Amino acid sequence: MYTENLTRQMAFICEIEKLKTVYRQNLVIDQSRPENSAEHSWHIALMALLLAEHAADPRVNALRVVKMLLVHDIVEVDAGDTFLYDEKGGADKNDRETRAAKRLFGLLPDAQRDEFMSLWREFDARETPDALFAAAIDNMQPVVNHYLTEGSGIHKHHLTVNQILAKKSFIAEASPELWEYTREVIGKSEQKGFYLPE
Amino acid sequence: MYTENLTRQMAFICEIEKLKTVYRQNLVIDQSRPENSAEHSWHIALMALLLAEHAADPRVNALRVVKMLLVHDIVEVDAGDTFLYDEKGGADKNDRETRAAKRLFGLLPDAQRDEFMSLWREFDARETPDALFAAAIDNMQPVVNHYLTEGSGIHKHHLTVNQILAKKSFIAEASPELWEYTREVIGKSEQKGFYLPE
Repeated sequence: MYTENLTRQMAFICEIEKLKTVYRQNLVIDQSRPENSAEHSWHIALMALLLAEHAADPRVNALRVVKMLLVHDIVEVDAGDTFLYDEKGGADKNDRETRAAKRLFGLLPDAQRDEFMSLWREFDARETPDALFAAAIDNMQPVVNHYLTEGSGIHKHHLTVNQILAKKSFIAEASPELWEYTREVIGKSEQKGFYLPE
Repeated sequence: MYTENLTRQMAFICEIEKLKTVYRQNLVIDQSRPENSAEHSWHIALMALLLAEHAADPRVNALRVVKMLLVHDIVEVDAGDTFLYDEKGGADKNDRETRAAKRLFGLLPDAQRDEFMSLWREFDARETPDALFAAAIDNMQPVVNHYLTEGSGIHKHHLTVNQILAKKSFIAEASPELWEYTREVIGKSEQKGFYLPE
């Protein structure tokens, strides 16, 4: 017989299969379908690994950020993906996601439940150097995706460039260099008409 | 102006968007579409993080395995996913994937190119404790997926349970406990008729 720990770990691992069917607003590169939160998490975990040298705060621990980003969207298995610019959905996002975190991380052995809960709360609060950098990467990827997919997922939302900048400009605090890159991509998308001018 | 390093890193990060459209034989949990290699990589990276305590070799470094698994399928952007039981596709897999690794990792700054190439080669050779454990996790997840998706992606290939066991039994060397779990899932899938009896 295998251990109780493994039974609980596998219950969680089977449950999070569902994150592959939680879809976001952005599309994949061939525009054939919306991107899901699992593949988004893979992408930004790799980005964090590669881009950590650009963090403004030298205390940023790349592998800790990778862990945080692998875990950060699991709550969406229950709570769904809340579009960043959806103010109505944003209002009860915290309640929905906290309930989800308790149920989902609660499937794990106690020590791992506490670790994942703590990583998720830290990410969500965006107060530590690791969480700020993780949030910057999580916010940079969709902007790059908008440009690569020719605005096809985002254009229908009729966002203005100032709405984008309002949500994204905190990236400058996490990394001036990543913000410079992101700001340039936003400008190119604006020129192409993927965002409305102010 | 941002650095040459960032320009190269972002060229790679944009290129690997394509891994989200490299599809595998297995289906996602609601059976609506095939699983892709990016979301598969996310899933097994998390599995490695959670299951590292079951590694037979105490030298296994969970975070290094996570890195290896985030990187291990990137070559499929060029080489495509080769089905484990496809002997014809398997024959030139190494050549195709080596070319892909050179082109794709070659987009990165030199130090990161060398690190990713080295992680991928280590994974592929399956000779170190980290690579053996990474391969065990990579081989365990599809078997669990077959059972969860009611054999829907695998049944059409008419695999016998012995074909499955021949590819998977090395998991016992990486972790007797994970193999016990995997062997049980294979047995349940055999009972349900997802694999042919011998």
